[in-house]
Amino acid sequence: MGKVFVVGLGPGGPGEITPRARQALTECDLLAGYTTYIQLVEGLFPDKEQLATGMFGEAERCAKAVQAAQSGRRVAMVCSGDAGIYGMAGLIFETAERQAALGKIEIEVIPGITAACSGAALLGAPLTDDFAVISLSDLLTGWPQIERRLAAAAQADFAICLYNPSSRKRKDHLWRACEILLQYKDENTVAGLAQNVGRPGESMRLLTLRELKECETDMFTTVFVGSSKTRVIGGRMVTPRGYRDV
Amino acid sequence: MGKVFVVGLGPGGPGEITPRARQALTECDLLAGYTTYIQLVEGLFPDKEQLATGMFGEAERCAKAVQAAQSGRRVAMVCSGDAGIYGMAGLIFETAERQAALGKIEIEVIPGITAACSGAALLGAPLTDDFAVISLSDLLTGWPQIERRLAAAAQADFAICLYNPSSRKRKDHLWRACEILLQYKDENTVAGLAQNVGRPGESMRLLTLRELKECETDMFTTVFVGSSKTRVIGGRMVTPRGYRDV
Repeated sequence: MGKVFVVGLGPGGPGEITPRARQALTECDLLAGYTTYIQLVEGLFPDKEQLATGMFGEAERCAKAVQAAQSGRRVAMVCSGDAGIYGMAGLIFETAERQAALGKIEIEVIPGITAACSGAALLGAPLTDDFAVISLSDLLTGWPQIERRLAAAAQADFAICLYNPSSRKRKDHLWRACEILLQYKDENTVAGLAQNVGRPGESMRLLTLRELKECETDMFTTVFVGSSKTRVIGGRMVTPRGYRDV
Repeated sequence: MGKVFVVGLGPGGPGEITPRARQALTECDLLAGYTTYIQLVEGLFPDKEQLATGMFGEAERCAKAVQAAQSGRRVAMVCSGDAGIYGMAGLIFETAERQAALGKIEIEVIPGITAACSGAALLGAPLTDDFAVISLSDLLTGWPQIERRLAAAAQADFAICLYNPSSRKRKDHLWRACEILLQYKDENTVAGLAQNVGRPGESMRLLTLRELKECETDMFTTVFVGSSKTRVIGGRMVTPRGYRDV
């Protein structure tokens, strides 16, 4: 029976690819994914056949991967970060349904370190209490829905992790998101940027929510906005969780 | 200079410990943590000195780890899942501040696969769109705040991942949480349980939000409640993300 492994590679470096993910990459006979993500692992598996597609080829990429599995092949669809969090896992199931391939192929999702975790670790510990994860990309979710989620998360004092904070086409999304958050959160709320985590140029920066609003970011940045309890401790961003006897 | 590594071990098995985490465990000379988590890795490092503490010894555990680092030792504080998400990373920074150890010791947080990711992978792809993570434990956060966050997340149609859904002392927390979610979410909303992920007895179960309300869980269960878009596809829980041309 053919199989699709949907594999989360983590932030980028070999040190954060789990043994289980690496095993799937070893076992597969076809490496599928967005070109940039395939480049993260092709050095480890130089002889593996590749099925690479460009940035907006998600549907095509998944269609080809499921087709290949239907013909009996073992395909690893690689994703950066986690396989499920804004990754390809959902689309692989949908595609298998559409191709009437459910039950005819195996689908195994292999989790990876998502940017909420790797970025948080670089910044300190911003997500130690309840948090919300929101993508600012409106390519797949309408902007009014994104605004509604930003407002709800801010009102209930969640720490917030923002994926896809901006791109060349959407320069003002982060600015607009901060406008909404500032309706409910103090302008001095601690925020943080984690950039190029696990890749060359890795860096972090702490700032206030007010400063974040004026900040330019890119697609390799994950943004963190603290809850009302988040503090700067030793140059790091920390959301305490109420261990009262510390 | 002494150092504390705060290390996320992932769900439990060696296949999901990253090479970076394993390297930290190799480098350290003292293995600290909750006894159950130390047991996950002591077989890999049988000769390592241990500093194990019971379940509610978080503050004491961190105090001893920071003290050991202050005396020049290299300590690995192990956490299940991720080091930051309901893990010990925040408390280590707070403890270092309290002991005036900031700048005198190094603190490195090493992320791991958190239950939101490992449980989601087992269930399918419930977190492919925006989501909120909420712990139902009221030991460290007041119940009214938890209720407020549940309501906000449900109102804004987030998928929701619940940590610590119940324990012997808090049998009715999941029931009460579902009562709140049902005020905003349809009773047929897809929900899922991921149990003992990466450990013996690993299992998953799909059910409706109405059924979830009457469900008994334990501390080894992570609960997922879908958004209005979440569907069952091939026996798995999938939240599509609007790839319109699939």
